[in-house]
Amino acid sequence: MTRIAGVRLATAAAGIRYKNRDDIVVIEMTAGGTCAGLFTRNAFCAAPVTVAREHLAKGSIRYLLINAGNANAGTGVPGLRAARETCRLLAGMAGCAMSQVLPFSTGVIGQDLPVDPFAQAIPGLLKDLSEDSWERAARAIMTTDTVPKLQTRTVALSGGDVVITGIAKGSGMICPDMATMLSYVATDAVVPQALLQTLLANAVDHSFNRITVDGDTSTNDACVLLASGASGVVVDSADNEDGQRFAAALGEVCAGLAEMIIRDGEGATKLVRIRVESAADDAEAAAVAYTVAHSPLVKTALFASDPNWGRILAAVGRAGVADLDVDAIRIWLDDVCIVEGGGRHPEYTEQAGQAVMKRSEITIRIDLARGERVTEVLTCDLSYDYVKINAEYRS
Amino acid sequence: MTRIAGVRLATAAAGIRYKNRDDIVVIEMTAGGTCAGLFTRNAFCAAPVTVAREHLAKGSIRYLLINAGNANAGTGVPGLRAARETCRLLAGMAGCAMSQVLPFSTGVIGQDLPVDPFAQAIPGLLKDLSEDSWERAARAIMTTDTVPKLQTRTVALSGGDVVITGIAKGSGMICPDMATMLSYVATDAVVPQALLQTLLANAVDHSFNRITVDGDTSTNDACVLLASGASGVVVDSADNEDGQRFAAALGEVCAGLAEMIIRDGEGATKLVRIRVESAADDAEAAAVAYTVAHSPLVKTALFASDPNWGRILAAVGRAGVADLDVDAIRIWLDDVCIVEGGGRHPEYTEQAGQAVMKRSEITIRIDLARGERVTEVLTCDLSYDYVKINAEYRS
Repeated sequence: MTRIAGVRLATAAAGIRYKNRDDIVVIEMTAGGTCAGLFTRNAFCAAPVTVAREHLAKGSIRYLLINAGNANAGTGVPGLRAARETCRLLAGMAGCAMSQVLPFSTGVIGQDLPVDPFAQAIPGLLKDLSEDSWERAARAIMTTDTVPKLQTRTVALSGGDVVITGIAKGSGMICPDMATMLSYVATDAVVPQALLQTLLANAVDHSFNRITVDGDTSTNDACVLLASGASGVVVDSADNEDGQRFAAALGEVCAGLAEMIIRDGEGATKLVRIRVESAADDAEAAAVAYTVAHSPLVKTALFASDPNWGRILAAVGRAGVADLDVDAIRIWLDDVCIVEGGGRHPEYTEQAGQAVMKRSEITIRIDLARGERVTEVLTCDLSYDYVKINAEYRS
Repeated sequence: MTRIAGVRLATAAAGIRYKNRDDIVVIEMTAGGTCAGLFTRNAFCAAPVTVAREHLAKGSIRYLLINAGNANAGTGVPGLRAARETCRLLAGMAGCAMSQVLPFSTGVIGQDLPVDPFAQAIPGLLKDLSEDSWERAARAIMTTDTVPKLQTRTVALSGGDVVITGIAKGSGMICPDMATMLSYVATDAVVPQALLQTLLANAVDHSFNRITVDGDTSTNDACVLLASGASGVVVDSADNEDGQRFAAALGEVCAGLAEMIIRDGEGATKLVRIRVESAADDAEAAAVAYTVAHSPLVKTALFASDPNWGRILAAVGRAGVADLDVDAIRIWLDDVCIVEGGGRHPEYTEQAGQAVMKRSEITIRIDLARGERVTEVLTCDLSYDYVKINAEYRS
């Protein structure tokens, strides 16, 4: 049961880029709900990101308008005009203010976004709105994704049950620096806007902001959390038991969606968890984790199921951590210790390493022996298909 | 004419990893010459790097001993013992002190280096030493390289002509943070050791330290400059006309070798120069250049000859430069301006972009409009063959 009372969705095939598939989505929230959003930190952010940030600041959001196939990024002033025009069209037909609509785009960068397909699709979209269209929406926002991504949780709070449902898309240009490519999460709980924003930021920091396919932070990353309030069940603090339960469930939805993005990473054949332990601070933990996660040599060894652990060691060594005591560092592939004392663990065997590398889910654990901070980054391998997908996309 | 009077070389097939090819090199310099060296900044540096650093500090270097196929990295204490033992063997047979030998290794990380093949090969190597073996040496140090890399220059100084000859190897795990995988340069000029080190550091900063294949800084990077002094022509300052001529020729040899490494980058089909202009400082120029050079999406677009300039723009945007004015940035593919005013240049055509992208040598020029600093980084594209080479290497 994915439904969120007070939130309705509709999809349509507007032909903006793709033929014979839905490529445009409207998500409507009942009046009186609250909305939180996080956006890419890429300086060349897309036009819809700029407009969505402006509109979100004014509050009272009623509609999200999303298209796939054209990112409306790198489009300068005409791009901003197109993003605003699509909001104006929807607002006019739905009877709300233009600033109550948040626009989102995903797809190819640098092509002008045509407004006509929106004008033609919006009347039908408004007629088709339904609480049951979450999966259709998850499909309509896909680009190089191969599977739709949807997560839902029901949480028992003191005032009754609330539901949290989210969808996401993303497969390449994935190294979110704020939120993933596109993700929309909704709940029927009553949550004040400021608290909603805090809850979303916390959840995203430990989910979407900790995944990477290729290190390329998108121009269009956006994550939105809607709280319709239709359940009447109130969450009014992050610190009491209800707040903690709600935050945990929201964290699960976001982490679940983030993991689905990595499983569906372009060309990915493996899900790889990089866990850095005993770091002196969060910055060095993240530096080591991302250096390993972005190493093309580590990623191709993972693709080949080759326990070429020297490449992991080399990546840790070049992560830029000052005064690293390499003799104290230990590295594991799942439960197999591969590195200790500056080199191969004395009991390590190629056979044991090979057995782990053949798995479709692998944890690389790195103990820096410097402090108490821990971080985890999810990534995938680098395969022929990544090159194929990205050498052929667009053409 | 590559010969350097006072420097002799020999190669042999020791069977350390490869069959039926030379894989070990000795370079001998006449007594009284000077030697400068630069090594990787990877914290997990290889055992021979540690030993070479120690020996170089003691001065009076007479021999370089190099093997290909086994990196002797990630090998802990046994690795250090093996590196020292190979120096001791050579010193014993050549009649010099062990600290007058610098050891170097390149190849697979994490495998113990066998000493026996050295013991068997060294007598023959010492007998075969010749001033004519530069190209054989360039071949013997190759791993995934497909061509030997050699550069030579003759410089007319006030005291007479001097020659500078260098060889290098490297194709993957290339993002030198001090010097490339392995490079050996020699001259017959007379150059005091401190000046030699300064001249080498300057040359390397603008050549080997400005190239990247895959962003993976090696554990074994090393660059050595020998000055045999056999010409009797003295270079005693970096600032006078002779010093500047010598530095220019040395810079050309290093830049030539660095470019050969990128042309021979694993799976590379294109040579790509990333030039960042009008940066506020060197750090942001390098950050932007390397972010573009390492972007898998930019690199696969280059492989596909697809003028998908949105990926370049996205990479510039995520380079972490604070307060970037995206509307002032301009980006060119060779002479074609693609980005201006935050989006596509008004006169840009897909046809013009396509024409550039089909070339085998391309310059991506990025004008940040923030200051006066300029930097250039050389890189290559990301092809199926990069994945193939790195998924299959070792097995």
